[in-house]
Amino acid sequence: MLPALIEWSSSYRDDLRFAREDLLGSAAHVTMLERTAILPKDDARAIRRELLAMHGDAAAGRLALADGEEDIHMAVEAELSRRLGAVAGRLHTARSRNDQVALDLRLHVRAEAASTLAELAQLVALLAERAEHERSVLLPAYTHRQRAQPVTAAYVLCAWGAALCRAAEVVEFAIRSADALPLGSGACSGSSLPIDRAITAELLGFARITHNALDTVGERDFAIDWSYAGCRVLLALSRLATDVIDYSTSEFSFVKLDGAIAAGSSMMPQKKNPDVFELVRGKSAIAIGDVTALLSLVKGLPGGYNRDLQEDRGPLLATAPRVRGAIRAMLAAIPRLTFDAAHALAAVSDGSTQATDLAEALVKRGIPFREAYKAVGALVSAALDAGVALVALDPKVATGIHAAFDRATMAVLDPRTAAAAKESFGGTGARAVTVQIERLHAEATRLREVSEKIPTLDALAQRLAAI
Amino acid sequence: MLPALIEWSSSYRDDLRFAREDLLGSAAHVTMLERTAILPKDDARAIRRELLAMHGDAAAGRLALADGEEDIHMAVEAELSRRLGAVAGRLHTARSRNDQVALDLRLHVRAEAASTLAELAQLVALLAERAEHERSVLLPAYTHRQRAQPVTAAYVLCAWGAALCRAAEVVEFAIRSADALPLGSGACSGSSLPIDRAITAELLGFARITHNALDTVGERDFAIDWSYAGCRVLLALSRLATDVIDYSTSEFSFVKLDGAIAAGSSMMPQKKNPDVFELVRGKSAIAIGDVTALLSLVKGLPGGYNRDLQEDRGPLLATAPRVRGAIRAMLAAIPRLTFDAAHALAAVSDGSTQATDLAEALVKRGIPFREAYKAVGALVSAALDAGVALVALDPKVATGIHAAFDRATMAVLDPRTAAAAKESFGGTGARAVTVQIERLHAEATRLREVSEKIPTLDALAQRLAAI
Amino acid sequence: MLPALIEWSSSYRDDLRFAREDLLGSAAHVTMLERTAILPKDDARAIRRELLAMHGDAAAGRLALADGEEDIHMAVEAELSRRLGAVAGRLHTARSRNDQVALDLRLHVRAEAASTLAELAQLVALLAERAEHERSVLLPAYTHRQRAQPVTAAYVLCAWGAALCRAAEVVEFAIRSADALPLGSGACSGSSLPIDRAITAELLGFARITHNALDTVGERDFAIDWSYAGCRVLLALSRLATDVIDYSTSEFSFVKLDGAIAAGSSMMPQKKNPDVFELVRGKSAIAIGDVTALLSLVKGLPGGYNRDLQEDRGPLLATAPRVRGAIRAMLAAIPRLTFDAAHALAAVSDGSTQATDLAEALVKRGIPFREAYKAVGALVSAALDAGVALVALDPKVATGIHAAFDRATMAVLDPRTAAAAKESFGGTGARAVTVQIERLHAEATRLREVSEKIPTLDALAQRLAAI
Amino acid sequence: MLPALIEWSSSYRDDLRFAREDLLGSAAHVTMLERTAILPKDDARAIRRELLAMHGDAAAGRLALADGEEDIHMAVEAELSRRLGAVAGRLHTARSRNDQVALDLRLHVRAEAASTLAELAQLVALLAERAEHERSVLLPAYTHRQRAQPVTAAYVLCAWGAALCRAAEVVEFAIRSADALPLGSGACSGSSLPIDRAITAELLGFARITHNALDTVGERDFAIDWSYAGCRVLLALSRLATDVIDYSTSEFSFVKLDGAIAAGSSMMPQKKNPDVFELVRGKSAIAIGDVTALLSLVKGLPGGYNRDLQEDRGPLLATAPRVRGAIRAMLAAIPRLTFDAAHALAAVSDGSTQATDLAEALVKRGIPFREAYKAVGALVSAALDAGVALVALDPKVATGIHAAFDRATMAVLDPRTAAAAKESFGGTGARAVTVQIERLHAEATRLREVSEKIPTLDALAQRLAAI
Repeated sequence: MLPALIEWSSSYRDDLRFAREDLLGSAAHVTMLERTAILPKDDARAIRRELLAMHGDAAAGRLALADGEEDIHMAVEAELSRRLGAVAGRLHTARSRNDQVALDLRLHVRAEAASTLAELAQLVALLAERAEHERSVLLPAYTHRQRAQPVTAAYVLCAWGAALCRAAEVVEFAIRSADALPLGSGACSGSSLPIDRAITAELLGFARITHNALDTVGERDFAIDWSYAGCRVLLALSRLATDVIDYSTSEFSFVKLDGAIAAGSSMMPQKKNPDVFELVRGKSAIAIGDVTALLSLVKGLPGGYNRDLQEDRGPLLATAPRVRGAIRAMLAAIPRLTFDAAHALAAVSDGSTQATDLAEALVKRGIPFREAYKAVGALVSAALDAGVALVALDPKVATGIHAAFDRATMAVLDPRTAAAAKESFGGTGARAVTVQIERLHAEATRLREVSEKIPTLDALAQRLAAI
Repeated sequence: MLPALIEWSSSYRDDLRFAREDLLGSAAHVTMLERTAILPKDDARAIRRELLAMHGDAAAGRLALADGEEDIHMAVEAELSRRLGAVAGRLHTARSRNDQVALDLRLHVRAEAASTLAELAQLVALLAERAEHERSVLLPAYTHRQRAQPVTAAYVLCAWGAALCRAAEVVEFAIRSADALPLGSGACSGSSLPIDRAITAELLGFARITHNALDTVGERDFAIDWSYAGCRVLLALSRLATDVIDYSTSEFSFVKLDGAIAAGSSMMPQKKNPDVFELVRGKSAIAIGDVTALLSLVKGLPGGYNRDLQEDRGPLLATAPRVRGAIRAMLAAIPRLTFDAAHALAAVSDGSTQATDLAEALVKRGIPFREAYKAVGALVSAALDAGVALVALDPKVATGIHAAFDRATMAVLDPRTAAAAKESFGGTGARAVTVQIERLHAEATRLREVSEKIPTLDALAQRLAAI
Repeated sequence: MLPALIEWSSSYRDDLRFAREDLLGSAAHVTMLERTAILPKDDARAIRRELLAMHGDAAAGRLALADGEEDIHMAVEAELSRRLGAVAGRLHTARSRNDQVALDLRLHVRAEAASTLAELAQLVALLAERAEHERSVLLPAYTHRQRAQPVTAAYVLCAWGAALCRAAEVVEFAIRSADALPLGSGACSGSSLPIDRAITAELLGFARITHNALDTVGERDFAIDWSYAGCRVLLALSRLATDVIDYSTSEFSFVKLDGAIAAGSSMMPQKKNPDVFELVRGKSAIAIGDVTALLSLVKGLPGGYNRDLQEDRGPLLATAPRVRGAIRAMLAAIPRLTFDAAHALAAVSDGSTQATDLAEALVKRGIPFREAYKAVGALVSAALDAGVALVALDPKVATGIHAAFDRATMAVLDPRTAAAAKESFGGTGARAVTVQIERLHAEATRLREVSEKIPTLDALAQRLAAI
Repeated sequence: MLPALIEWSSSYRDDLRFAREDLLGSAAHVTMLERTAILPKDDARAIRRELLAMHGDAAAGRLALADGEEDIHMAVEAELSRRLGAVAGRLHTARSRNDQVALDLRLHVRAEAASTLAELAQLVALLAERAEHERSVLLPAYTHRQRAQPVTAAYVLCAWGAALCRAAEVVEFAIRSADALPLGSGACSGSSLPIDRAITAELLGFARITHNALDTVGERDFAIDWSYAGCRVLLALSRLATDVIDYSTSEFSFVKLDGAIAAGSSMMPQKKNPDVFELVRGKSAIAIGDVTALLSLVKGLPGGYNRDLQEDRGPLLATAPRVRGAIRAMLAAIPRLTFDAAHALAAVSDGSTQATDLAEALVKRGIPFREAYKAVGALVSAALDAGVALVALDPKVATGIHAAFDRATMAVLDPRTAAAAKESFGGTGARAVTVQIERLHAEATRLREVSEKIPTLDALAQRLAAI
């Protein structure tokens, strides 16, 4: 091919990002070839030893690979030859670049998704801790961005946490999706040599082995799942971000951003711009684009490997830094948000957000819901007509509208009372919120455990070195 | 609101699609209200009885709801009032339209996803059966749409099946995602009445209960997951479709389409256009759009319910007919594809697609892979220079290039031999393919079982009627 | 084909939406066939007359087409046969369904895009009129959703108008894109009959004729452009919508929504939910999905017509109602927004949003910008330290920081002064805003004129009837 | 802000890509400040001189900017200060980073889009030239990937060219979209200084000036248009690519790829993989993702500048290299495709693809189209029944079916005759193709001229240096 086209078509520079994965995959492969007696023991061991040495160099950031090679696999083999001589020529036995690149990408995705899960676990735990400390701050929950009902800041934090737990389940799905060994698929039909893929899978800690070589080399579903999972995490964060951006406006003033997490201006030192949250929201849009890109990439492709698939690199490699960066930014930012309890309380103090509570108070007295609903409507209208807040309505007017609007009933207009009363599962009551906080902690623990079951690249290197 | 704006903003017509879900959800809700003594027994029973009668009408396609109502929930309550009088006013106790619509949508998605899984199971089983019958048909597997290695048609069918199984796992994920009860979340903060969401969940067969009301009413992650799952199924089918379209060209001529599944022309009766497969491929693109739409919809939304969410209807309701329609089209079409064994075999008969097999044959004799690789390259060049097919190369020339190219080695150039020899897990060998066929059958069974665990709407109606 | 597959694959029901386009296209086609003497005069005239009669029926909503036909074209021909007998069999001369459907779709897009442009013109003019009346209302402009600088409501309305004008240019582009005659392309290579496409183009008012039949029947770029244009309009509206939603919160309270455009609740009559704006924002997300769908649809398709293209129908036909519905909703809603001038003014009255104005006042006195910038920073800090608003800072402290902070300079802290002073082109000064309002009116006029140059379907029918 | 957050949130590294644009924009800005007497002449001139010197360094790849700065604008000012001292502090007068970054991005897009247009012009001209030389090669045009009608290779090349011309119109639109000066908008409301934006616009060659500062700093429509234009170019190329990939299969064998543009294998030297075309097709999918990303990015954003917008960088900066790289790859590849005329001709030689031509031949004799259509259908059936190609059907059988099937009529079964006969505008006839080739040349010329009207960065630098 013309040099300009080789340069244009090469993914070498991107692929250096998974040099470690390539080396570890090769070390496992050669171990399998040794155990199945496809390679002579000494050759296999020499190769493994050198691959692990190169991995050590790569981990330390000092592996130098020649630049002229076509791709990362050839560059690794060339370096191996330089170090070992002709025996390096045995490494590529019973594999092709098609299954090798699939392995590298899967190892990358699996490790990054596991790290993401661990960081999400931290963030969920952080939200739970913050919730524990913000149980007394009251603010309105919104529907249509209109004040709807009084809740605690703890409750809002639990809502954010619940959304993240759901996104974390998608990350778990992406891990399972990536966690199958593709190596041993060859170019597209397997190998006539007596390879044993179970050995390689075990060495690399894969839970499954892919079922059909033609399918294996031609698919990138694990990459799409990973991109989708990352997008879902960012979308959950994008909504949290919008809430924080709104809360930190002069108009809402429910939270203050510490200077350590806000962007300012030397001319206007009072400015605390929520750039961190805006960027997270912006990144969620880019993540949507990446999901779309990967879905479009495979649409209508013929079976087997097509070079189109190389274009997976951009979205695939961008996902981890984008998602993990955003989670870490939130880990830094959320502890430095302070709720302005007085401001927030004022927003639920006129009683208007407690209309539903009034209606339910009537239902408790046996009044059918639609009747209760109408009575409250009349009460609210009366307050509007009188030009006073609902809490300030003349008690006689209230009982005039419905006898049940007595002092006891009207007490639910206190936002604390209203929030405290909703003890249904998932509600704002103190016990209900405790359940939610505990669940977030439990889920954080579970996510961390799932993450820890996935071997890191370092752990794989140690395992292979110990053979 | 202005009548024109009410008309414009209403989703009533779309929402009639889940009238059954709404009625069953209400029947379960009122049962819970009865058991928790929030409603008087007689009232609750009368309401449930009538709701189930209305559900029977809806299932039979004869439920008439008034047209003037704002939404499906109000229309149902209005009809209930017409039938029962004032007692109907008790139904809406301890819920809001926010949690009610979330329930309806989740019931819809769960049931449709379960049906999709059952149909996917059928399709996977069908591919496995076809594979069993096409073990002797040989054709090339492709990389870069260039002939690469000989495989059997059974193997290609297994590849398609493997891709579908992976897509089915995403559908399973979507089921789990939808399978949590939102009802009892109220407008956004739960209820002060002593509701018991576990009862409702049990009645409606939900595996989980959502954890935070504010989060619950404001999220549509289950809809996004469902749309994503549907898209993944269609993308798997889009690749199968491209293969069939290519195979059925005059140029490839590997398969023939029966007139029952091909579009023709009375002027050109010989034309067998693969419209069915083209449409499936086209639908995969529209499915990508729907995933994107839903991801964009929630991006950056404030917490809690926002009316934007109503725009979920288009993508959410389009997914089931699109995906299930495509699967059913494939169920109809695939039995009516016939492989043209002779044509297909001719495409792998000159030996050139067996180069890798030759190399592996040398490796089996202890020759290092890179040396084997070079020797085969020289052999192929010699055949090119001689202007003959690899199979027709003079044996002396072959052994002249490398002594190991003897008659026994050269026998692997027979495509049957080559395909049969790859017995690695996931390979083309007979035993390896048997494993794949069995796995597809096992997976089909498993998918059917997962599907059957999800109660159908009919089953829910029976369960509620039996109380 | 199996009846179930015919049913599944048919687009007939969707295509009824462009029955009028199909009839007019055919009437023009048969006129061309008459003028080129390909058809006998009498036959051609009889066919045209009947097609126009059918068009009249269709326009009046009373054209009944048989249901069993494969597609709209066959259904029209069948009805024509029923009315005219065998002569109807001459209509399909020198065309194919491939170029015919392209014509129908282009006529649809061109007409809908032109109507969209006319409605956008109305909306732009409305914003200009509102701007004229809101020149005295002051409110903050935001960056990062933090108060940044004082502007008038007129200025914000002009900003919204400017964005819409830009979107309108995309709609114009979509019109140009659709405005080329595809008919005469046949199946994919033109016709051997002496057709004259210029005649058909002139009859149907097309500005251009497509250049290559193979390209013409296989592309849907005009549909993609239309979908993209619609999406851009909705995105412009989505941002306007977010502004209005924010402005109408209790927290901002810059605008009030009239009950005629807000959704309420009989229990909470004070609620004025901005559903109309939320729905517009939501629709913008669905529009993104449709652009993505169409882009993905054509990605990697082989040349020529592929049945995949039929899947253009969903996005293509959804665009006009979605976009035009949203514009009309805005036409209804915007006159019913009222600015709360007092509330809005309060948000810019402490002086902090006028820091830049102070700096520029210093620059006017010859002080280098960075020095001015630092001086203002010190001033703001001093106010912060003193715990007073910038406007309330002790004059001596001000002049102590920089001698130029005298009374004259400090006068720019009045938001009216600050806004009025920015007379740069595109700025907030009165003259600058007048220019913007005039430009919006001029652009509205221009858009209306562009729109009026595109013949409506009614105009085409009249033109054809007059022959 | 925390150093980690500054690092995470900075776009500095990306923004170095438009350092030249930033310097030229600043040079124009300072010139305007001089001419409006806002800055002292000497200061302004010193600043301009140094900015242009820095631009010269940047163009030569030797401009070193300090790494610690927050963004490119601050880094440039810091370097200017280092070189000039305090006078550099005057540069930022009457602008903000909000309008400055908008300027840099618009200059980037405009220049890259213009270069893209020039390269597209080259590609269109190349296709026209190839078409001129491939007028005698016949091959089938396809519908549904089934052979449909005979066309010349010239005609296919013209089809590809027509699609590219349409995409080029979108690039032109993107140029117009970017070609408006944003500078002078300040943070969001213009400036109180007597700036003259027309001067800056003229210096930088902008055709328009943006109309409203609030709108200007908060929008990225020009970036979306650019991304959309790039995507449309790639989609046009993706379809060309699929055609070439199919044509270069062993099965089609219509084209051969020269080794200079095909990827091979040392083991299988006969392999000519169409990687270049696959990558182009793959890149079109990634481009779809980028359009989606940018559309989603602005969806629902509040008015004014939001930091989310910074995330435009990825898609915005990726577009030019992706699109221009693909065009250049096609410029290299297309001259190295060779048509295999014999193979291609064989695919249209049995007469079956000339059925329409037969029908039109009958129409020419006055037979109504539907009758002709049925007669041809009967003829084709007769050939099928007889098991012979249409061209080989017994003449008596033919005339037995319809008297008009005489020797003269049947002559149209020769594919050369059939292709030559379609002289309708856009058809396959020799004159019609000549028109198409000439139009491609004319369009290439026009595109080049449009491109040349946009000043390059070098031209802007010269213009500014000449002041």
